[in-house]
Amino acid sequence: MKEDNIQVLLARRPEGDVTKENFEVVSSPLPELQPGQFLVRNHYLSLDPYMRGRMSDGPSYAQPVAVGDVMVGGTVGEVAASKHADFQPGERVLGFFGWQRFAVSDGTGVTRITEQDLPLSVYLGAVGMPGVTAYIGLMDFGRPKAGETVVVAAASGAVGSVVGQVAKIHGCRAVGIAGGPDKCRYVTGELGLDACVDYKAGRLREDLAAATPDGIDIYFENVGGPILDTVLARMNPFGRIPLCGLISQYNATEPYRVRNFGSLLINRLTVRGFIVSDHLDRWPAALKDLAQWVRDGKIKYRESIVQGIENAPAAFIGLLAGKNFGKQLIDLR
Amino acid sequence: MKEDNIQVLLARRPEGDVTKENFEVVSSPLPELQPGQFLVRNHYLSLDPYMRGRMSDGPSYAQPVAVGDVMVGGTVGEVAASKHADFQPGERVLGFFGWQRFAVSDGTGVTRITEQDLPLSVYLGAVGMPGVTAYIGLMDFGRPKAGETVVVAAASGAVGSVVGQVAKIHGCRAVGIAGGPDKCRYVTGELGLDACVDYKAGRLREDLAAATPDGIDIYFENVGGPILDTVLARMNPFGRIPLCGLISQYNATEPYRVRNFGSLLINRLTVRGFIVSDHLDRWPAALKDLAQWVRDGKIKYRESIVQGIENAPAAFIGLLAGKNFGKQLIDLR
Repeated sequence: MKEDNIQVLLARRPEGDVTKENFEVVSSPLPELQPGQFLVRNHYLSLDPYMRGRMSDGPSYAQPVAVGDVMVGGTVGEVAASKHADFQPGERVLGFFGWQRFAVSDGTGVTRITEQDLPLSVYLGAVGMPGVTAYIGLMDFGRPKAGETVVVAAASGAVGSVVGQVAKIHGCRAVGIAGGPDKCRYVTGELGLDACVDYKAGRLREDLAAATPDGIDIYFENVGGPILDTVLARMNPFGRIPLCGLISQYNATEPYRVRNFGSLLINRLTVRGFIVSDHLDRWPAALKDLAQWVRDGKIKYRESIVQGIENAPAAFIGLLAGKNFGKQLIDLR
Repeated sequence: MKEDNIQVLLARRPEGDVTKENFEVVSSPLPELQPGQFLVRNHYLSLDPYMRGRMSDGPSYAQPVAVGDVMVGGTVGEVAASKHADFQPGERVLGFFGWQRFAVSDGTGVTRITEQDLPLSVYLGAVGMPGVTAYIGLMDFGRPKAGETVVVAAASGAVGSVVGQVAKIHGCRAVGIAGGPDKCRYVTGELGLDACVDYKAGRLREDLAAATPDGIDIYFENVGGPILDTVLARMNPFGRIPLCGLISQYNATEPYRVRNFGSLLINRLTVRGFIVSDHLDRWPAALKDLAQWVRDGKIKYRESIVQGIENAPAAFIGLLAGKNFGKQLIDLR
């Protein structure tokens, strides 16, 4: 069987909101494998907020995608053909192959998935980069103590849902912030958090106060904007704020200006910006714990799967607007 | 000789700018000493920005001064009379006796100054609370490495001047920010910092860029406002920002809104709010190092001494406006 590859390229850089015009879907024949190479058929592509940063050439922690290049992204799939001594057809692999159905690799940066008891997609979510982000941010920079109150924004999302559940595992009061009653019901019902505040209900300050009667010791921040200010006003002395994203700001042409910065001084807070790829030494321990918690049912997760690579741009635009519910994946098969 | 005590009370809480009407100067006879008490004649009163916070009853890290109470503050002086077994007349003591010439104590919270080779006033400055603030913030939370660039605001002040010189001792490039050419000349000339940016010259962004060609690794923050935003835009990846004050904000009725908060994420910064009194375990080591550096001439300091307790309110108002030059003291003798 000879299939074409289908790829999504960055067609032009966004100015403000991302639109479909920023992308181009192209088809191209698969290249011949050279000795030492293998072909990966990607099953799932992960869509993540950080990709918005890669689309721009402003200051960022990573190189931008060049215009005309394949959009970057994490993928899971299986080896379809191989001229590489160490990778055999049928093996399951995690890679960073981007927005495309097939990829040719020499093995650099590819992780073989040998465990067979978990579905492949989980390695892009709760037992992948988002889960490790949650784990490192909460455990290493949040340092939760039993009885403390942990608040997490985007609580039904790929990162936030793990943060909340890991906080519960460690004996904390876990409070989510999410958009809409469906997501909030999921956060308290399925995920088991103690409370969830619907930021779209228009009473964020009052509802957050009711949900955090003892104040907030740890705020896991990934959204920014007015939610950050509202949380800052409720932080307890010596609180910690791991900061791994500001999704509300990614499409903004003017940044939100933070009003309650003074809380950092008054409450002697520590705000710690971090990127999960800076902490590769912590990944093995994190992945081991996360996989076990998923097996034990202590971490549940939800996926939002869109069929077909050609629908990735629309799904990504929806992700930035909070329209996904759980981990956003593209099924590439 | 029987003298009256003179005290400065908090007469009413400020709304916005502090004015003389917020204070009242009163005179009262000295009380009789009871057994177990001693009388301290204060030589110097330290004026420090944190006192502005104690004048208000908004959220703070410390109890406000009650209206009608003596304003709080650190003092050095000597025992003038004693019915206490452990304190003898003539001994030099550091206390927190507030804005008054005399105080009666049972010894609680009083530190005996046994070293005789340093002037008493230094224990309110470079070898006192401001110096320890600089030391803990830079060493424990800034963690300077040789060759890194350290920027400190209010660089000619009691805290900032120690920060800059300790940064130099540790092999860093030290850059001050100060108001006006006189202060800047002092910072680079007398204190020996590598550069000083005059924020009043109207070219803060350009001048800071020129003074920090390799970016900024540590920003010791004690002013806030637009200077903070300008510095945030030049922070290097993995930079650290110890935060012990926001003096530009203390009189503000509306807080300055921070624009470049996103730098915390992009550059994976750590912002650490701290108050020196939370870290009493670190004081002995800090004071030992600071005293030795002063003796060795590695830390120089400048004092701005106003005569007379009745002039403390005006001096404090000037301090908040940056009119002092070096450590602000009141000579109470």
